[in-house]
Amino acid sequence: VPLSTPVSHTNTPITAVGERSLIALIKARFPGSPEQLVVGIGDDAAVAAPARGMLEVLTTDALVEGVHFDLKYSSPEDVGYKALAVNVSDVAAMGGRPRLALLSLILPERMRVGDVEALLDGIAAMANESGVIVAGGNLTRSPGPLIVDVALTGAVGPRKILTRAGGKAGDALYVTGTIGTGAAGLQWLRTAGESQRGTPEIPGVATCVVRYRRPEPRSRIGWMLGRSRAASACMDLSDGLADAVIQLASSSGTGATIDASRLPIPEAATGVFLDRGLDPVRAAVAGGDDYELLFSVPERRAASEWLSGSRGASRSLASAS
Amino acid sequence: VPLSTPVSHTNTPITAVGERSLIALIKARFPGSPEQLVVGIGDDAAVAAPARGMLEVLTTDALVEGVHFDLKYSSPEDVGYKALAVNVSDVAAMGGRPRLALLSLILPERMRVGDVEALLDGIAAMANESGVIVAGGNLTRSPGPLIVDVALTGAVGPRKILTRAGGKAGDALYVTGTIGTGAAGLQWLRTAGESQRGTPEIPGVATCVVRYRRPEPRSRIGWMLGRSRAASACMDLSDGLADAVIQLASSSGTGATIDASRLPIPEAATGVFLDRGLDPVRAAVAGGDDYELLFSVPERRAASEWLSGSRGASRSLASAS
Repeated sequence: VPLSTPVSHTNTPITAVGERSLIALIKARFPGSPEQLVVGIGDDAAVAAPARGMLEVLTTDALVEGVHFDLKYSSPEDVGYKALAVNVSDVAAMGGRPRLALLSLILPERMRVGDVEALLDGIAAMANESGVIVAGGNLTRSPGPLIVDVALTGAVGPRKILTRAGGKAGDALYVTGTIGTGAAGLQWLRTAGESQRGTPEIPGVATCVVRYRRPEPRSRIGWMLGRSRAASACMDLSDGLADAVIQLASSSGTGATIDASRLPIPEAATGVFLDRGLDPVRAAVAGGDDYELLFSVPERRAASEWLSGSRGASRSLASAS
Repeated sequence: VPLSTPVSHTNTPITAVGERSLIALIKARFPGSPEQLVVGIGDDAAVAAPARGMLEVLTTDALVEGVHFDLKYSSPEDVGYKALAVNVSDVAAMGGRPRLALLSLILPERMRVGDVEALLDGIAAMANESGVIVAGGNLTRSPGPLIVDVALTGAVGPRKILTRAGGKAGDALYVTGTIGTGAAGLQWLRTAGESQRGTPEIPGVATCVVRYRRPEPRSRIGWMLGRSRAASACMDLSDGLADAVIQLASSSGTGATIDASRLPIPEAATGVFLDRGLDPVRAAVAGGDDYELLFSVPERRAASEWLSGSRGASRSLASAS
């Protein structure tokens, strides 16, 4: 009995090909890695070998259409990419490296096979960039929005875990990359005409839009911060810098002072906010689409070469008090 | 800075208390186990110790309102219970024992705090019954249906894995418990008046309704089948017996013959189907709400005491050919 029929027409509605063909499509896209995956996609569950001598990081995060994305501003491929990226960011924030993903795809009947293929392409792109193996998942139809829900495991050394709670009074706060970039990208998309949305003319604005659609989780930096034990506490900026600073500080039992003049807000983002009558600092710290890492560093290490070095990914903010 | 305010009014809309209060509620409900959980609910991700010497089972399954449940027929507590149960069933079908769950709750704004508490009560009840620890999760609002998406890890011995592919021609097929029970329960609920739905008068029908609302995953039997290596192949019946037999047989490269007279369909379920003009055998094998296990057993073991023993949970069906 053949379990699937080949899917050739990307414009075919998913309801016409059935669940089994879609599973075959997913299985073909994610062949797994025999070294790590004893049983892959297609059985009741996946079976994997744990990472030797490591603890396991476990996280889940969902992107919901109408809440976290709009298919007017992001392609199905962007949505797939971002859905895995936001989970990779959470694992990085614990000092872990990501390993195995489970995809829970909740698909509206209006979707085409080609949309699902694009979604899988985006997931595969992020999986390749971050070294993630898709181990399994679940498909179900949605009577409402498209939802891409990902569960991700990772590995972290027993004494290399970065929590939110390890900060101490006097620590310096750093953030990777820039803030407000994703929020500016979304602002721009919301006010751009339909025909412009693909390609903003100003390069800096184009960067904001790309960052909004496809955030780059700080996987390597999180892993290095954990291994080097340079950071006392760490978390990612999924809900914006303002929220993250409050959460990191209160988890650590401290307060924090932020010097607004030292916030790494890109010029293009400032321009987008000003053009729309928004205060750039407020918009940037409230913006929730930066998947950067916020971390605290003990005073004596804050001036070290590693942190102020050539990467340019870290910027001192202010000290916790 | 207090991260949460105590939630006292179960009738309060969830939008009025905010995400952080709901997370505090979940954290209080699932304190975790310090032995297994190094970092629990409330950080970017959970961190756990793997099970020593074991492989890891990974699965995810979602219950979507309007697709898998209707709040007219199931309470929020039932939905929570079942959402974890269907995942426990998948781990059992691999010969594993369940360990750690991640909850992804996608909540419509109309929900009340009390509904969320009831959902958590149901999850907690199943977690207690199956020895599962809730390690973390994610909350998001839903512009459409209520969705309870669970990812579950489990542990299985390296040579104790039950796949769908191990069956051989000549093996006998067994199924645990009864079939058609859940489907009959749902049929009954669909045709019962609103006032009757709580308590069917006929005890056998009440059992069907309870089984539909709160399936009992065969966690211990799956684990024993794996450990004893009694079964050559195994899967759960999430999509009904007919579908499971086809999938197990084709994964194993065999066919299968089912003797309809030996199907374990409860009398009350047969009655419900007949009353509604349905063929009981067709309805029972197509019914998708039995979270029983289908497994194949090599001929020489099929008559063993263990399988025909006092549990009464296993019934021979027919041999694969």
